[in-house]
Amino acid sequence: MAGKLDAFHEFRSRMNEKLLGKGNLQLKRFFNLDSQVYTDGALSSQVKELMGLVASAVLRCDDCITYHLLRCAEEGVTDEEFFEAFNVIFVVGGSITIPHLRRAVETLEEIREKNTKGEKAKRGNGQKGKRVKNK
Amino acid sequence: MAGKLDAFHEFRSRMNEKLLGKGNLQLKRFFNLDSQVYTDGALSSQVKELMGLVASAVLRCDDCITYHLLRCAEEGVTDEEFFEAFNVIFVVGGSITIPHLRRAVETLEEIREKNTKGEKAKRGNGQKGKRVKNK
Amino acid sequence: MAGKLDAFHEFRSRMNEKLLGKGNLQLKRFFNLDSQVYTDGALSSQVKELMGLVASAVLRCDDCITYHLLRCAEEGVTDEEFFEAFNVIFVVGGSITIPHLRRAVETLEEIREKNTKGEKAKRGNGQKGKRVKNK
Amino acid sequence: MAGKLDAFHEFRSRMNEKLLGKGNLQLKRFFNLDSQVYTDGALSSQVKELMGLVASAVLRCDDCITYHLLRCAEEGVTDEEFFEAFNVIFVVGGSITIPHLRRAVETLEEIREKNTKGEKAKRGNGQKGKRVKNK
Amino acid sequence: MAGKLDAFHEFRSRMNEKLLGKGNLQLKRFFNLDSQVYTDGALSSQVKELMGLVASAVLRCDDCITYHLLRCAEEGVTDEEFFEAFNVIFVVGGSITIPHLRRAVETLEEIREKNTKGEKAKRGNGQKGKRVKNK
Amino acid sequence: MAGKLDAFHEFRSRMNEKLLGKGNLQLKRFFNLDSQVYTDGALSSQVKELMGLVASAVLRCDDCITYHLLRCAEEGVTDEEFFEAFNVIFVVGGSITIPHLRRAVETLEEIREKNTKGEKAKRGNGQKGKRVKNK
Repeated sequence: MAGKLDAFHEFRSRMNEKLLGKGNLQLKRFFNLDSQVYTDGALSSQVKELMGLVASAVLRCDDCITYHLLRCAEEGVTDEEFFEAFNVIFVVGGSITIPHLRRAVETLEEIREKNTKGEKAKRGNGQKGKRVKNK
Repeated sequence: MAGKLDAFHEFRSRMNEKLLGKGNLQLKRFFNLDSQVYTDGALSSQVKELMGLVASAVLRCDDCITYHLLRCAEEGVTDEEFFEAFNVIFVVGGSITIPHLRRAVETLEEIREKNTKGEKAKRGNGQKGKRVKNK
Repeated sequence: MAGKLDAFHEFRSRMNEKLLGKGNLQLKRFFNLDSQVYTDGALSSQVKELMGLVASAVLRCDDCITYHLLRCAEEGVTDEEFFEAFNVIFVVGGSITIPHLRRAVETLEEIREKNTKGEKAKRGNGQKGKRVKNK
Repeated sequence: MAGKLDAFHEFRSRMNEKLLGKGNLQLKRFFNLDSQVYTDGALSSQVKELMGLVASAVLRCDDCITYHLLRCAEEGVTDEEFFEAFNVIFVVGGSITIPHLRRAVETLEEIREKNTKGEKAKRGNGQKGKRVKNK
Repeated sequence: MAGKLDAFHEFRSRMNEKLLGKGNLQLKRFFNLDSQVYTDGALSSQVKELMGLVASAVLRCDDCITYHLLRCAEEGVTDEEFFEAFNVIFVVGGSITIPHLRRAVETLEEIREKNTKGEKAKRGNGQKGKRVKNK
Repeated sequence: MAGKLDAFHEFRSRMNEKLLGKGNLQLKRFFNLDSQVYTDGALSSQVKELMGLVASAVLRCDDCITYHLLRCAEEGVTDEEFFEAFNVIFVVGGSITIPHLRRAVETLEEIREKNTKGEKAKRGNGQKGKRVKNK
């Protein structure tokens, strides 16, 4: 399963580069805007990423869900918190969101596994973990 | 403008009563579930209501937006926080959400006006404000 | 409340006439197709109209819901059957469909009232009721 | 092609187990509700599953379409009936649903093939076929 | 009917002002971006406004449809061209878009009436018509 | 990567054949209608295909996007024009459309590569390129 997240990162980075390389000024501005709205402000970055997760899930975009799961995990969201967010998702969005939640649970598992390995590696060499965020 | 919120409450209460009066057990269960998922837990009720607001807005349902604006205001969400939530909404959902945000700003204004009057009334008679939540 | 259904019919007929009057051959063909798919076949017209109702509700179009409520009522769908269809709607589509179901219940009430009056009128003059279908 | 349905079942069962294992009471209640609304009542289970199919298709969720195709087939829906349901789907939902109908036709073929083999196997050992439903 | 367009303009201008007045830098940037993408470039402003119309209609937002109908009319789109755009809309989006097309035809009529009056007024005083665009 | 477009064509042709082979008259009529609305008229086929692309992208259907990218390329749409269309897409539809635009950029690349090879082959044997359109 571990290949899924890596494949997601690889394709996302490669195609974002192409989008921005070939694209115009407006596209660059939108990408900037897309980063700015999730930074700490009156609401914390964590709460905003959780909002991004819920929005992505009720609009049913698996890639967007994966991205916000990763960012939420970086911001320290616990499994219990994730499952309460999932509750809001299926209540607002209905059973049509359930297949996306099944895939979200799989992705979350992979994220946790990866982070566990990362933690062990960090303890081994005394370095701090690199943030996954690379938009 | 003050009539809009009252009309919303009146129609909502009256039709929910009819829905539940004529409806079956499954409908009652769904209404119960819909209340339960927004209660305090690992995530606060405030964060969950903000999630409900964002989900309602990207799915573009004005009545749902009005309901969660009311609940968020009850949970103490500030204007600055609301506008940061609006940022997540238009970035994820695009310009198609802007007409809903225009109406949301109008609704929010009415909520603030009403609460200001309520505050004055409370101070006058020493009673605590009644919660608007009545699902 | 009785004016709502009449207003719906009036606007719908008037604008369909304009759409078809100004529109091209493709539009006419689509309108024909839209009528044909709901006629009796391997599945009854009643079942197809119920499908049309469910589709309209999960896609959240109030005018489409009103139209299919009318047609379902003509095909003899009972209140108990309508509320079981509503169950499928909110389970698949989530709480975002609830405001539409509130309005559907109001529309259904008006349809029943109108038909009750129509029944009395029919008994009085011995004539058969005119079908509402006029697409 | 025969592997697709098996893969669907395997992933679905495994992840539902995880969702429910890690999830909370609200998630369990929603899963129960999701089963209850499709049982026989004023409307037959068959009609409700057809409604679930139409709702899934206009909302364009392939996994949900696969699930309801399976359940409809168990309830004895014929090919002619499926294609009349498809008519309602593309008329209400437009050409955007056509790629999902292409995949639905492929899934339906696999379901029929599997059932034909199952029928032969049953006749061979005198046992009744196991229902696919396992939510 | 003539009041509808005026009411649209009035509410839109008033609430955009409030949105931008209370809103933050990100909101302003999004509004700027929203203007920039429709200007003449490799594709003409007319083609882009037609794209905006089609996007608004398949996503079923009446206010967005009204805005792009106004802008398309300013860019000289003819009735015949509008109805060919409507063809793309209902074929891609299905019958669920038809109620929005009914309202679009009504709005278009009001736009044409208003422009006819404006033309007469212009001829009378020799002034050029003011563009409706005021985002 | 070159296999993706071929796989798209193969599956699309094979399943359309089955859909139409097993399907009924209404389905055939819808397929005809779906071809007719994109032909030259008051608006050029190119503009209509660009509209189809924008509609497909804001409704987020990858197969529909692929089809209209192919058709637009056949109609001579340049990369600069495509990226201006992408601007309309993400502004109207929001960041939820970005993963689809990433995949669109990949598909567009494959289309350009294929056409370059085709051009060379044509020059070699003096034959005109076969149109990809085969609905």
